[in-house]
Amino acid sequence: MKRRIAVLKFGGTSVADPEKISRAAERAVAMRKQGFQVAVVVSAPGEMTDELIGLARRMAPEPDPRELDHLMSTGEIVGISLFCMACRAQGSPAVSLSGPQAGFRCEGPPTVSTIKSIRPKRIHAELDAGRIVAVAGFQALAPNGDTATLGRGGSDLSAVALAAVLKAERCEIFTDVKGVYTADPRVVPDARKLERVSYEEMLELSGAGAQVMLARSIEVAQRYGVRLHVRSAFQPGVGTWIEEVPEDTMEKAHVSSIAHDNGEVRLTVAGLPDRPGVAATVIAALAEGGVPIDMIVQSSATVKGVNDISFMCPRDSARKAKASLAAAAKKLGARGVDLQEGVVKITAVGTGFRRSPKVAALMFSTLAKAKINIEMITTSDLKVCCVVSTEHADVALRALHKAFGLGRRG
Amino acid sequence: MKRRIAVLKFGGTSVADPEKISRAAERAVAMRKQGFQVAVVVSAPGEMTDELIGLARRMAPEPDPRELDHLMSTGEIVGISLFCMACRAQGSPAVSLSGPQAGFRCEGPPTVSTIKSIRPKRIHAELDAGRIVAVAGFQALAPNGDTATLGRGGSDLSAVALAAVLKAERCEIFTDVKGVYTADPRVVPDARKLERVSYEEMLELSGAGAQVMLARSIEVAQRYGVRLHVRSAFQPGVGTWIEEVPEDTMEKAHVSSIAHDNGEVRLTVAGLPDRPGVAATVIAALAEGGVPIDMIVQSSATVKGVNDISFMCPRDSARKAKASLAAAAKKLGARGVDLQEGVVKITAVGTGFRRSPKVAALMFSTLAKAKINIEMITTSDLKVCCVVSTEHADVALRALHKAFGLGRRG
Repeated sequence: MKRRIAVLKFGGTSVADPEKISRAAERAVAMRKQGFQVAVVVSAPGEMTDELIGLARRMAPEPDPRELDHLMSTGEIVGISLFCMACRAQGSPAVSLSGPQAGFRCEGPPTVSTIKSIRPKRIHAELDAGRIVAVAGFQALAPNGDTATLGRGGSDLSAVALAAVLKAERCEIFTDVKGVYTADPRVVPDARKLERVSYEEMLELSGAGAQVMLARSIEVAQRYGVRLHVRSAFQPGVGTWIEEVPEDTMEKAHVSSIAHDNGEVRLTVAGLPDRPGVAATVIAALAEGGVPIDMIVQSSATVKGVNDISFMCPRDSARKAKASLAAAAKKLGARGVDLQEGVVKITAVGTGFRRSPKVAALMFSTLAKAKINIEMITTSDLKVCCVVSTEHADVALRALHKAFGLGRRG
Repeated sequence: MKRRIAVLKFGGTSVADPEKISRAAERAVAMRKQGFQVAVVVSAPGEMTDELIGLARRMAPEPDPRELDHLMSTGEIVGISLFCMACRAQGSPAVSLSGPQAGFRCEGPPTVSTIKSIRPKRIHAELDAGRIVAVAGFQALAPNGDTATLGRGGSDLSAVALAAVLKAERCEIFTDVKGVYTADPRVVPDARKLERVSYEEMLELSGAGAQVMLARSIEVAQRYGVRLHVRSAFQPGVGTWIEEVPEDTMEKAHVSSIAHDNGEVRLTVAGLPDRPGVAATVIAALAEGGVPIDMIVQSSATVKGVNDISFMCPRDSARKAKASLAAAAKKLGARGVDLQEGVVKITAVGTGFRRSPKVAALMFSTLAKAKINIEMITTSDLKVCCVVSTEHADVALRALHKAFGLGRRG
C-alpha cells in the first residue's frame, strides 16, 4: 500500500502554552485518523527562544555561538516532548525526535547552519509503526557532533525539507495568520485570502515584505515540488496553497497581491563621478560590511558627469551602511550620503508583467491620481515595486488594492 | 606530566540565576588556574526541572516516561551552556557536553535509569586541549539512542561516576550547605561541621535522613575510592571530606553525628499468629507494592502465640503500604494495622559500636533522663537508631548531641 505522508509544522505562537499544544496535537491526531502518516515539526513554545537568548546575554555580551546553539536547541525539545504527551493523552502513539535523532545533518557555522541532508530511516520506522513523529525544528547534527541551529525561518525550512525527503503529499504550515492575502488586512480592510499562489509569486511576496514565510523555505519547496498549505493554527478552514500553478493560467498578466515593507530605509550616494567602476566601488563597500541591499537604482546623469546611486537596505543595518558608504563616497569624491528613513516599499506581485506594461502603467497612474510621489521604481517579470513616503503608504495600498480589483467579491 | 583532574558538581540552587552561574564558573576557572584539568557536572538551574514536570502534567496526568525524560533533559543543557558562556566571559575556554556527547551510557527504564559506563574519550580530548568541560548531569544515552535520566540524586551520581572514570584527584560537590554536621544546625545550634567522615559513616548518615547526598552516589565513591568534598557554593572555606578513613582512628568507638529523619511513619501489624512464614508474608505484601521499608522490628510474643511486626516507611508511601498490609493482615488473621504518623527517627552514627555497648547505653540513658519514651530501636556496627514521638525530637537531638560531646569546642 502506498504511504500517504503529511508533514505539519507548528510555529512558536501555535504551541505557546499547554492548551495550544493540545489543540495542535488534535490536528495531528485527526490527520492520522484520516489515514495519513503524520510527521510534525514543532518550534520552541512561545517566547522561549528569545528568553534563552536573553539569559545568554546576561552571561556574556556576545555569547559563544556554539554554546548559544546548545542552549537554543532545548526550546524545540521542550516543544516536541510536550506535543507527544498531548498526542498520547488523545490516544495516539507518538514519539519525539531531536533534529540529530531524526537524521537532520547540517553544515556551516553555528546559529546560521544550512541543512545538508536528512536520513529519514528512523522517521520512516516510527511512522510505519503507526506513531505520530514530532521532530524538533530549527536544529540538526553538525559534522563535529554538535547540535547546531538553522537561523531565521529554520523551523519552516526543517518542515519543507522533511516533506521533500519523505515525499509527503502536503506540508501544512500552521501559523498565526489565516493564509496569504491580497494585501495586509490590518491596512486594507477588504483584503482577500488567496486560495493558491505559485512558488514564484510567493518568493516575490516574501522579498516584498510579506512575513508569512522566508524565501529560503519557499525555494526548497519549489525545487522539490513540496505542496505547502499555509493556514491558521487557531481557526478552522483552508488557508492558502503554495504550489506549482499550471502555465496556462499564468499566461495572462495578473496581480495577485499588493505587499508592503516598512522595515527598510533608503540610502543615496549623491554626486558620484560618472565613470566606470564607481557603482562597483559603492556596492563593494556595503558587501564588505555584510549589509544586504535591495533595489539598486542609478539615476541617469542630470548634471553632466555626475550620478546618484540609491538603494534600500534593512532599517537595522542603516547605521552600518551609512558609515561604509561615507568612506567610499569620500574616496570617490562624491557629494555625500543621504539616509531617508520614512519610506515604505510597495510591491504588486503577480505574473506575466514583462509581457504587458499594463500592470506598471496602472500602478503609476493610480499613485499619480492619489497625488503620491514615487521615490524609486524597480520591476521584474513578477513584480512592480515603488517606494513612497511612509505618510502615504496606507492610502497607496488601499488605492492599488482597489485598482487591481483584489477586494472581496460579491 | 601527570594529569591532575578535578571534578566539580553544582546543584540546581548553585546555578539558579545568571549571577550564581557566574560565581560557580569562577570556581572552575580558579581551579583551572591552579593547574587542574577541570570537568564540571551541572544540574538544571533552580526550579527548572520542577517547572518542566509541571508543564508535562498539564499535558497529561501521567506523562509518558520516555517523553518526560526528553523534556527534563533540556534543563541540564541550559545549565551547561550558560555555565560555559560564563567561563568564556572570564577568559577560560570551555565546552558543554550533553550526557550522550560526554560518553555517559545508561540502562534500565526511563526516569530511573542507572549508569552503565562512561567512555571519556571526548572529555579527555577537550581537557587536554585546555578547556573546562561542562557535562550535563542526570542524563545519559540509553541503548535505544534516547536520552534518559538517572532519577533522584542523578547529578551527584554523574559527578562521582565521572570522577571515578577520570581518576580525578577530587570530586567537589558544591551545594547549599557548608558540609556534613554533627547534627542539623537548624535544630541543634552548636552543631559542628565535620572535617571528614568515612564512606561508611556517610552511608549511614544518608540512610538516617541526612539530606546531603544519597546513598547511591556514596556507594560509587566508596567502590572507586573517589574523594568527595561537600562544600558551600556560596561561602568560602572548606567543607567536609568524605573519604577512606585509616583503620587505626576507627578502632575506638566514637559517634560522629546525630541524624534525624521526620520523613517516615511507623506501621504496625498487630496480633499476628506466631508461626513461621508470617513475617515473610507481611514483608512480601509491601515488596509487591514497591514500598521501601526500614527498621523491621518483630516483638517477642507478649501474649502467647501472638506477635506484632513494626517498621518505618516513607511518609509518601504510607497509604499504599497500609492498604497492602490490611489485605495481608486479613489473610493471616491478624488483629489489624496501625499507622503512627508523628514519629521521628534519631540515629547516632559513628564507628566501632559493636565492639562497645557504651554508645547504645549512653543513648538510652540520655533519652531516659529527658523522660523521652523510645518506640523502636535498631543497631548496627555503625549506628544506634531510636524512634521517638515528634514532640520530643528537638529535645532528644540536643540532649544526645551534648551527651556525645559533639558541640563546638573552646
